[in-house]
This record gives sequence, C-alpha cells and structure tokens, in this order.
Amino acid sequence: MHIPKSSDVAKCYEKIKSYIHQTPILQSADLNSRAGCNVWLKCENFQKVGAFKFRGACNAVLHLESGLAKNGVATHSSGNHGQAIAKAAQLKGIPAYIVMPENAPKIKIEAVKGYGAEVIFCEPTQLAREKTLEKVVQQTQAHFIHPYDNAHVVLGQSSAAWEFLHDKPELDLIITPVGGGGLLSGSILAAEAFHAHKGEPLCKVLATEPEQANDAYRSMQSGSIQSLTDQQIQSPTVADGLRTTLGNIPFTIMSHAQTEVICVSEESIVNAMRYVWERFNIIIEASCAVPVAALLEKKIAPTFKNIGVIITGGNVDLDQLPWNKTV
Amino acid sequence: MHIPKSSDVAKCYEKIKSYIHQTPILQSADLNSRAGCNVWLKCENFQKVGAFKFRGACNAVLHLESGLAKNGVATHSSGNHGQAIAKAAQLKGIPAYIVMPENAPKIKIEAVKGYGAEVIFCEPTQLAREKTLEKVVQQTQAHFIHPYDNAHVVLGQSSAAWEFLHDKPELDLIITPVGGGGLLSGSILAAEAFHAHKGEPLCKVLATEPEQANDAYRSMQSGSIQSLTDQQIQSPTVADGLRTTLGNIPFTIMSHAQTEVICVSEESIVNAMRYVWERFNIIIEASCAVPVAALLEKKIAPTFKNIGVIITGGNVDLDQLPWNKTV
Repeated sequence: MHIPKSSDVAKCYEKIKSYIHQTPILQSADLNSRAGCNVWLKCENFQKVGAFKFRGACNAVLHLESGLAKNGVATHSSGNHGQAIAKAAQLKGIPAYIVMPENAPKIKIEAVKGYGAEVIFCEPTQLAREKTLEKVVQQTQAHFIHPYDNAHVVLGQSSAAWEFLHDKPELDLIITPVGGGGLLSGSILAAEAFHAHKGEPLCKVLATEPEQANDAYRSMQSGSIQSLTDQQIQSPTVADGLRTTLGNIPFTIMSHAQTEVICVSEESIVNAMRYVWERFNIIIEASCAVPVAALLEKKIAPTFKNIGVIITGGNVDLDQLPWNKTV
Repeated sequence: MHIPKSSDVAKCYEKIKSYIHQTPILQSADLNSRAGCNVWLKCENFQKVGAFKFRGACNAVLHLESGLAKNGVATHSSGNHGQAIAKAAQLKGIPAYIVMPENAPKIKIEAVKGYGAEVIFCEPTQLAREKTLEKVVQQTQAHFIHPYDNAHVVLGQSSAAWEFLHDKPELDLIITPVGGGGLLSGSILAAEAFHAHKGEPLCKVLATEPEQANDAYRSMQSGSIQSLTDQQIQSPTVADGLRTTLGNIPFTIMSHAQTEVICVSEESIVNAMRYVWERFNIIIEASCAVPVAALLEKKIAPTFKNIGVIITGGNVDLDQLPWNKTV
C-alpha cells in the first residue's frame, strides 16, 4: 500500500491545475452570524463534472504511463467518480469503461456516455459491481482506478484544500464530509503541506458524517475500519455519497492525524441542504450539507474563527428533493 | 427626467465597489457547444440579497445627502428590490420602509425584516401599493427609491456589466432580461463607457423577454412605452420579475441605443431554467433563464462569438418549482 505524502501535494497541483477549475469561494453574512465565526464555502459543485471527484480522477489518469494508459481506464460507480473518470479519460484521449448499476439515474448514465465512455450495466449490488468490473478489466486490460483507495486519487483530491488555503490562508479549520475518505485524507495532506515551512499553527482538518452512516466515527474510535450496520444499510442516510466504508489509504492518513469525526442527524442534513440552497443560491448534494449541518447545530468548537467547508458536489435529481419527502 | 450618462459609470463603480460582491463568472462546455460560441454567466444570484438589485439600491442610498437620508428610504416591492433597499439602508444606518403585498412569500417578508426594515402590508394590487407608499412617505418623510425609473438605480445596475467587461474584455455581446429596464439600460451605458476610449467595436447589448410579457418588444417597435395586454395580465409569464412595464429612463436609453428585444416562449424559459440548475448547479429565478432560453433556441445571431449573460437573481420558492407544475 503506497501512502501519499504531504510533500507530494504541490507537485500534484502543478500537474493538474490547467485541467481543473479553480472553483469559487462563497460567503454569507447570515451563515457567519449563525455559526458565530467566518465561514467560507469552496464550491466544488462548480468543478468539472459537478464534483471534486474530477480532481482525483484527473490526477490518476494523467499519472498513467503511456504503455498502461493505451488500454484505457475502468471503474464502477453509480455517481460522480464514474463521470470524473470518463471526463479525465476523454481529456487524455484514452478509452474509459464505467460499470454502473442498471438502476442508476438516467441523467448520470447519459453524462458518462456524453464524455465518450462505454457504460457496462450490472445488478445493483456491490458484489455484481465488483464481478462485472473484474470481467471488464480482464477483457479490455484497462487500468482500474479506485474512487478513493488510490494514492493518486487522494493526492488529486488534496488540490481542493490546497487552493482553498492559498485563497484564504487565515483558515484555522477545514471541514469535509467523509465517505470513503479520499477528500478528507487529501485535505489533511494539503494542510500539512501548506504549513510545512511556515512555523504557524496547522490548519486543523475535521471530518463530518451522518449518524446514520457513522462508520468513520466508529473506525476512529476502534482503531480499525468498520462497516455500516445492518440497520444503517436497511435505512440508508439521505447523504448518498457517504454510504461507503473508509479506504485503507485514507484510514491510515486519518489515523496518523488523529482526525476527529463529528456526526449529525438526518433531519439536520436536510435542513442544512435547504438552507444552503436558499441562502447561497447554489445546488448542493445532501452529502455536502453534512459539514454545514455541524456548523448550524453548533457542534464545532467555538475556538475556530475562520472555517472553510469544502462543498463536494451538486449532482442532484431535481425530481427527488429530500424536503419534498420529509415535509 | 435626469438621464444618466455612460461617463458616470466608472465614478459610480468606484463609489459602490466596496459595498457590493464582485460576483463570479461561470462557464459550461455543454452550453458553449449547444450555443455554438463561448458563453459566460455573470452570477448576480450570488450578489448581496441574491440579486443584482442590490447594486442599484446601494448606489441610490449612498447618493442621498445626509439631510435627505436621515428620514430613511421607502419603496414598494414584492421581490428583490425591497430586500435590496432594506439591506442598503441597513449599511448606511438609516431607516427603511418597505410596502409589501400581504400575499408576498413569507421568506421574502422575513428577509426584509431581517435587514432591519419596517414592513407595511397592503392589498396585492398596484394601486394599493402606490397609495400605501404615498401614505408612508407622507408620514415618515422617507425618500422614495423607484426600482428602475431612477437615474442612480440605473447607474448602480451598470456596475454588473462594467465588472463583466473588465473580467472578459473579449465579450462582443451582453444579453440581459428586460422587465422595467434598469439592468438593461445600465448595461448599455457600461458597454458604451467601456469602449469609449478604445476605438474597438462596441460590445452590443441585447434584451430578452418572455413572449407572454413582450411589452418591451412592442415598445421598441412602436416608439412609445406599451403595457402588458389583458391576456398577458390574466395569464402571467412564469418569469415573474419581468411582468413590469418599462420605465421612462430605461426606455430613453434603449431608444437611443436602438436596442433589439428577442422574445421566447414559456416552455423554453422553464426548460432553460432547469438546464442551468442541472448543468451549472446554481439556483436561478425564471427571469434569468430568459436569455439562456434565447441561446438554447438559437435565436441569437451566429456572428457573436463571446457572449455574456447576466444572471439576475436566485430568490426562488423551492416549494414552487415551475417544472413541477408543467411536467
């Protein structure tokens, strides 16, 4: 297992920066007042493919040597990682094979196809995904890029916090949601890298996740990677991007940094999502609302004065808004 | 009637720039490909109070001499102008009186109150609004600030196109929606000002409006300000911000510039609104979708290669989305 280092962050950023969007940072006087501190949102919902996932996919694809790259890349995904790999492969001019569950939203299937990737459908189970991917890789010799348990993906994700800290060097805390842990662990590396030669106190990185998918919290408590409980699988969190288990690479980085994980309720996630839609006029996924929920619920220590939140993505089915279900 | 001049644009910008947000500009490869040219969206939905209206309100309020200002400002509004005046008055530390129809959305009423303004309710008719405002002005001696037929408001609105042209000097066309005409006429002045000393071809400014509220189109055709027809009042356009008639100041500036007005259907507005939500992950009002509809419907001459669209605002009732009504 190759664990990426904070000393690789700047080099990675130089490699991918001309391919990615330097996303805008937004602020609201109302959120500052409710949170009792300065809060900035780094809007990765405006990233290519509408999510931070493009950063990691882009770095992983660019990193492939030409011998390995010519057969293309493959992954399984029902969401943003599939689009990100498809788009990154299109930019590099190599084939992409995306295994998607047959019940994936039509808009996501079409987006992946729109980036020129081949879509291979499978039954909507984790096992079917993995088996189908295995078959695809055997047939095509394409290179599998894992959505978060991949050193290049983690390094690519570090670029969001890296940009954020350059734009707002006063940040004393960055909050991200945690699913597989790619963005979180990349952000930890970025904060270490940013402060490496400055002798200033390190910008802390904090993870947030739904109580209804608190596997990262339990993993940090127990010291080993935990899965979702049966109850959590049967009654899944609205934050669908965060239903995954931690990867080994992210968990190693989090453990080393002793990252704290703060959990929030389903109701507070939906409220925070709607709050951001109404106050910031941006479309964010439920997963992005998790750190905002922690702020609105006053679950963040009041010692932090300048807080950055990474808004992870904006790919939402406008016909399935969660407040229409819960009202 | 005092008609503002393009030579006032730069001075106005210097006065208000520290009070307003320099809003981000977004682009989408998909929209460029559909429109067949480069398109940039200037996101005034991220302006303070969520709409460009704050620019004009801010300039008008800042311009008041202290003798006139001490009694405060007043206006009638069911929408963004009321919030904008309330917020601008709060910044200047003077009272604001906003006459609102008693059926105005609760979220807008609360926003106005949140900025410290006094809300005076009236029946939801134009006559009741004007009568109530007159009474308020008599009682308070507050200064009435018209939403668009006011030279300082028009100049304040010019700052959006002024910023846009400085960020993207290659723009050969700016498209705005037209309701009362404040933003449109301000944009005309900004384009004139920007190119005044450059000897380059002028960036053209084009207006778009709903067919179902085509009073600006008919006004330009006939050479005098036209109202909505009875049919248009009874079956109002989804673009609720554009149901107003042109002001005298905007009409004078438009007539001088011989501004072209392009009209689009209700269906194309709703489709364009949803398209922007899905592709840009931003929340825009139906009114903002009107220029995008003109682009998607290929109603813009193909001679333009670099087109700027001013996205006017993002204050939307999330429980009343137009595609839920039309699907």
